[in-house]
Amino acid sequence: VILVNGERTTQIHVADRGLAYGDGVFETLAVQQGEPAYWDRHMQRLASGCERLGLPVPDAAALRADATRIFGIEDRLVLKILVTRGAGGRGYTPPQEVECNQILMTSPWPEVYDEYARTGIEVGVCKTRMGRNPALAGLKHLNRLEQVLASRELASEGLVEGLMLDEHGNVIEGTRTNLFAVKNGVFQTPQLRYCGVAGVMRAVILDELQAAGIPWVESDLALDEVLGADEIFMCNSIAGIWPVTRISGEKPRALAIGPETRALQDRLTGGMVK
Amino acid sequence: VILVNGERTTQIHVADRGLAYGDGVFETLAVQQGEPAYWDRHMQRLASGCERLGLPVPDAAALRADATRIFGIEDRLVLKILVTRGAGGRGYTPPQEVECNQILMTSPWPEVYDEYARTGIEVGVCKTRMGRNPALAGLKHLNRLEQVLASRELASEGLVEGLMLDEHGNVIEGTRTNLFAVKNGVFQTPQLRYCGVAGVMRAVILDELQAAGIPWVESDLALDEVLGADEIFMCNSIAGIWPVTRISGEKPRALAIGPETRALQDRLTGGMVK
Repeated sequence: VILVNGERTTQIHVADRGLAYGDGVFETLAVQQGEPAYWDRHMQRLASGCERLGLPVPDAAALRADATRIFGIEDRLVLKILVTRGAGGRGYTPPQEVECNQILMTSPWPEVYDEYARTGIEVGVCKTRMGRNPALAGLKHLNRLEQVLASRELASEGLVEGLMLDEHGNVIEGTRTNLFAVKNGVFQTPQLRYCGVAGVMRAVILDELQAAGIPWVESDLALDEVLGADEIFMCNSIAGIWPVTRISGEKPRALAIGPETRALQDRLTGGMVK
Repeated sequence: VILVNGERTTQIHVADRGLAYGDGVFETLAVQQGEPAYWDRHMQRLASGCERLGLPVPDAAALRADATRIFGIEDRLVLKILVTRGAGGRGYTPPQEVECNQILMTSPWPEVYDEYARTGIEVGVCKTRMGRNPALAGLKHLNRLEQVLASRELASEGLVEGLMLDEHGNVIEGTRTNLFAVKNGVFQTPQLRYCGVAGVMRAVILDELQAAGIPWVESDLALDEVLGADEIFMCNSIAGIWPVTRISGEKPRALAIGPETRALQDRLTGGMVK
């Protein structure tokens, strides 16, 4: 089901700046029993993304009302929300009065993700690097060609996910997940000042660690540091936590799913991941 | 007038990957008396962009036939061609069988551009930097948020164009133009290995210089080198050549429109720019 500005349609004008320039932001949410998980956090990130791009901040209550119209209480599904700068302006220059387009789309729950959470995944090391740009770092914007190119690499190797590095060789994230490495009981996750998406699940995990008094650090993380970690996992709002059981590439490494990763999964899901 | 895959419509499916991820490329052409300028060069760049992104290369003859359906012999207008990866795939991963969407759009000729070519323009220095990514450098792809953010800066200052730098402080290009600086009779233009769009007019100019035996060099170009040039101009397929008569910013500088710039304009337009 698709809603554009609250109306049921599958179409949008080709002059939309989302299509022309990737001029907009999006959110992807897990919906269970009619309840979008971490709704407030997703709305906060959406608002913050809009502010950074100079877009009017959408009315979260109106978005929520629209969202609940397109799924029933029984559903388990994925909800995607796109906000674009609409049409108009002269070339790259936005119009003075912006009328955003809001698109809501649902898609089936990817059942295989639950298996990945239980049994772990193999990740590759993507050749496609991420450009560094503080003006766009952290944002879940619509300029995602780097992720598309990296995902093409992974698909050709039959891999579910891969590590993406910046041009300095720091590991930043997966193509659609953030990364955590655990070393000597300390959780490490890449800092995202120069590139990467500041994932909602990443923020949930950092808060969870903080609340539990578990040490964590946000920092630069070289590939060798990741390869030398005791435990590694990837995360996002739909995946939850995917333990990494193998890193392929030039220096392949196998890992067991560690106790810290399992404990965190249990805390976040109430023991539902087994 | 808009054609999507040869049919008159203004709409496209919201699941198009061009909208979701900026997964596609585009071209912008000047059309005069029914003739798209530098058609073959634009088609070559379109093909090369598609190849680098793993998109099927469009049939240039079919595109030309579609294009001629949407403008008459009397027109002077701008033609924009977008090619997206269409819909489908799992998230960022493209579908195995790609069905591209081809969008052709015309828009009125920007008359003011002719004045800019005659009297020159003032350019600013954009705060928004360009990320470096060899995988995307040179491509005229649909991920253009950097240009949108830079254009917002310029609009707020009432400027027509501005210089964009990479994170190392090299001048790369304008927001929608390439840059040339002339120093002691040598034409310099930034190398585009790490970022920037390899413009068709830029290529036309380099070929023209080569043919005329005028020395030119493609290299890194620091802002101070640009500020110290004898002549500066910006170029693209619609603008032709815009002499720069003033650079604003921390070190403002006024320039005269130089003889090399005027001579090049004359060669490219048959003396039409006065």
